[in-house]
Amino acid sequence: MSAPSNTAKQRLENIKHHLNPNVNPHFESLRIQRRQDQVPYISKLDPLSFLLRSAMVYAHKTAIIHRQKSFTYLQLAERVKILANILIDAYQVKPGDRVGILCQNIPAFTEAQYAIPAIGAISVPMNTRLAAKEIEYIADHSGVSVMFVQTELMDRLTDQTKTTANIRFIEVADSDDTSQDPYEASLKKRSNDCRLGWNDFPTAVDENEVISINYTSGSTGKPKGWGFPWAIVAVGGTQIMLNKLDYTLIWKLLKEHGVTHYNGAPTVQNEICNHEDAVRLEHSVNAYSGGSALSSTLIQRMKDLNLKPTQVYGLTETYGPAVLTYDHYTLSQYNEEEQAKLLARPGFNIVTSDEIRVLNIETSVDVKPNGKEVGEICFTGNLVMKGYYRNPKETTKAFRNGVYWTGDLAVRHPDGSIEIVDRSKDVIVSGGENISSIEVESVIVQLDQVSECAIVAGPDDKWGERPIAFVVIKKNRTLDESTVINHCRNSLAGFKCPTKVVFAKEIPKTSTGKT
Amino acid sequence: MSAPSNTAKQRLENIKHHLNPNVNPHFESLRIQRRQDQVPYISKLDPLSFLLRSAMVYAHKTAIIHRQKSFTYLQLAERVKILANILIDAYQVKPGDRVGILCQNIPAFTEAQYAIPAIGAISVPMNTRLAAKEIEYIADHSGVSVMFVQTELMDRLTDQTKTTANIRFIEVADSDDTSQDPYEASLKKRSNDCRLGWNDFPTAVDENEVISINYTSGSTGKPKGWGFPWAIVAVGGTQIMLNKLDYTLIWKLLKEHGVTHYNGAPTVQNEICNHEDAVRLEHSVNAYSGGSALSSTLIQRMKDLNLKPTQVYGLTETYGPAVLTYDHYTLSQYNEEEQAKLLARPGFNIVTSDEIRVLNIETSVDVKPNGKEVGEICFTGNLVMKGYYRNPKETTKAFRNGVYWTGDLAVRHPDGSIEIVDRSKDVIVSGGENISSIEVESVIVQLDQVSECAIVAGPDDKWGERPIAFVVIKKNRTLDESTVINHCRNSLAGFKCPTKVVFAKEIPKTSTGKT
Repeated sequence: MSAPSNTAKQRLENIKHHLNPNVNPHFESLRIQRRQDQVPYISKLDPLSFLLRSAMVYAHKTAIIHRQKSFTYLQLAERVKILANILIDAYQVKPGDRVGILCQNIPAFTEAQYAIPAIGAISVPMNTRLAAKEIEYIADHSGVSVMFVQTELMDRLTDQTKTTANIRFIEVADSDDTSQDPYEASLKKRSNDCRLGWNDFPTAVDENEVISINYTSGSTGKPKGWGFPWAIVAVGGTQIMLNKLDYTLIWKLLKEHGVTHYNGAPTVQNEICNHEDAVRLEHSVNAYSGGSALSSTLIQRMKDLNLKPTQVYGLTETYGPAVLTYDHYTLSQYNEEEQAKLLARPGFNIVTSDEIRVLNIETSVDVKPNGKEVGEICFTGNLVMKGYYRNPKETTKAFRNGVYWTGDLAVRHPDGSIEIVDRSKDVIVSGGENISSIEVESVIVQLDQVSECAIVAGPDDKWGERPIAFVVIKKNRTLDESTVINHCRNSLAGFKCPTKVVFAKEIPKTSTGKT
Repeated sequence: MSAPSNTAKQRLENIKHHLNPNVNPHFESLRIQRRQDQVPYISKLDPLSFLLRSAMVYAHKTAIIHRQKSFTYLQLAERVKILANILIDAYQVKPGDRVGILCQNIPAFTEAQYAIPAIGAISVPMNTRLAAKEIEYIADHSGVSVMFVQTELMDRLTDQTKTTANIRFIEVADSDDTSQDPYEASLKKRSNDCRLGWNDFPTAVDENEVISINYTSGSTGKPKGWGFPWAIVAVGGTQIMLNKLDYTLIWKLLKEHGVTHYNGAPTVQNEICNHEDAVRLEHSVNAYSGGSALSSTLIQRMKDLNLKPTQVYGLTETYGPAVLTYDHYTLSQYNEEEQAKLLARPGFNIVTSDEIRVLNIETSVDVKPNGKEVGEICFTGNLVMKGYYRNPKETTKAFRNGVYWTGDLAVRHPDGSIEIVDRSKDVIVSGGENISSIEVESVIVQLDQVSECAIVAGPDDKWGERPIAFVVIKKNRTLDESTVINHCRNSLAGFKCPTKVVFAKEIPKTSTGKT
């Protein structure tokens, strides 16, 4: 055979393609070059790749809408790149450094969640509803060197946090007038002066490196659902940010913006359903809810409005939701009453998680799936955290026998679904926020007048649960309710403070379960 | 503080939950225990986990429909488990062994694609349209010890393949009467006698272990789109299997079964659109197409029928489709004419792939994204194969400079999208199948009368392209068209054989490009 060698090079010269460029190239700057020693068939799993890809594929699609502002994916990536430059050049952030974020659900939050890991640093998002003392603890314990703080949350900084020489603050005004916002001003100033491109950032090489530390309800409060800023960007969705619960605005957005998905605790779902603007939507909207169970009445009301309820379960330790209720196909096989029963179960692990297990607390053996035997919910797999930061003791305890122990108690049904029956971490769930009863108790017993104290969950129509304090006063001392509540307000976030104080002669040692 | 220690154990005793089991537990047998030394926060990525999860979450949902047969996810998992037992006990398959699959798109194919990796073995799916000599080559080169063969494909086994002592065959009749099917009979026989459960199989420990070898068009032919049996199970979809292209049946299924997605080469899409049963569907169906470009006329016809066309691009070496055309949001910004132009581009990498690059063939530098400069399409990342089996030379060549070189030529547009302009591997694409012109040439020059030969692609209304042979006859010899074609039929799959032979005095060495 002597067929002509039809090489690419030769044919290349024969090819005459004339395709007219219609936009300016932008994607080349969005590339992070591979290292020379990388095998071609393995790439690190990294949320940053979602942003860089979406900035190419969905370049001119809206990524973020926040009141009057909106950014395309290309603009979002550019803002993140500028912010990363600022963190390195103006704040000397180095790989491994911790950077705090004390912002509501505003663009700066999402941008920081990309810019910080982009330069190999570790983000420390903080719950905006925490008290100043709690913020001080987190900043100190995580050792943040830089911290984003929204102007209206400046009062959450104690004098000690503010004056410590170790922390530098980046103020975010979140003002509609960007010229009045130091954060926007610094982005603007640096916009034509980025020393480093994507390829120059010291991004972590190992996909198992820590990129975020999230303080949990165990000692502090519920963090933001921080996986979502990454997931929405991965699918090229448009994120409408809401930093306040404005139900009139929510209904306006649901009706006019074609919203397809939203998250809200049962309290929030309830407010949405009972709002005066509530009408049945023309399009179906996926409504995710967690924290506590949706009542069957609320589920029915949501369905009437064309809101499709899905209950989720997860913990900060599992990167947020890792369990979903029954899929809509399976539910459709049951009648309304049975559906409500099934929807009360958190259900099954999502596809990126290992099977959720319910293990006997003493033997670490799976409970019988009879819907009766109670055990502790345990997780393994790629959604589980690496450990508690600077707390090897708690980490070892939580990872007993090769699984992560959640502290929540559940039964397993014969179909494998789990149903929570109690939370072993003494958590009160109020308006979607977790309150540690032990934490509140430890504050109240600081009062010299108090002998004993127990916090239990009281039912509340609006918030689901509210903490109630049972207090035993020392002999020959006096104390009133407002003193206890005001004392709590000085140390705790408002939502953690008891709304009612019951003075008792004694606290029965075995009967203070949350029921 | 002396609040009562509200331990899980104590509260456990207080909990009285009475939930009625309504189905028999099945999910516990679907569990693969973790090794004692595994860190709790890392799990191997493994398609097997899709099947085990779906068998729990979607237990009673239909997984597979094939003519009169249908299986739920629970039944599918059970069949796979039985098959894995048979492979181990009756065929002595060991980890690392290669197991061939010569079956059409029938349940046994999907079942084998799970049972083989479940026991740490390597599947070798074979294109059912290959000739016996080609099957012999693949079986021999991959060293299969066991091979699934569909009864009607038995004629694809050469005597040598059949009689070799090294290969044992599992015959699959694919009969509607399962009692007449040796495959079904052996599954049935073993159904109450499974020695090993999921937890006992010697599944590979390392997620980067080889689980499948797929012979490519370079030397053989296009394999099945083998990633789909795993992807559909991951999302709990219902797969309707079609082992023959029966367009009357296709339209019946589209209309009556609520099909939401299907794949088909342009030739297939064309037949679907031109069929007498074609009517506009009430629901929108996602129609994926690859292999060659959809014409704008065809795209319009598909849209008229409510088929939503999406072009994909990929190679066996990238586990199938790794590139998608523009998303429907972006397309909607353009008019019909511009849309047709954009849809002709393979577009952008999917979210699980790295960016697709177009590199200068000599310098390995990215081409200018001006829609004019031509380079070779290159891939990196987790969708790229590990290498060519038992072919270190070709592997090294394909992985030059840390990227995988596809052999396809493309330009890059200013928005980052790629557009294929030619394929450097001398591939003719006929009815969605790839034909290597070099392979056909090497068969024709075996004829003693032939001096030179070149295969080029001829345009064909039905198949897109068909191979045409240019043959130079040796001096003082004679040869006719049918001799050449019959000679090819003895060694090659029918679709690879030239439909036309042109006898020429000489073959111009530099002008035999596929155009």
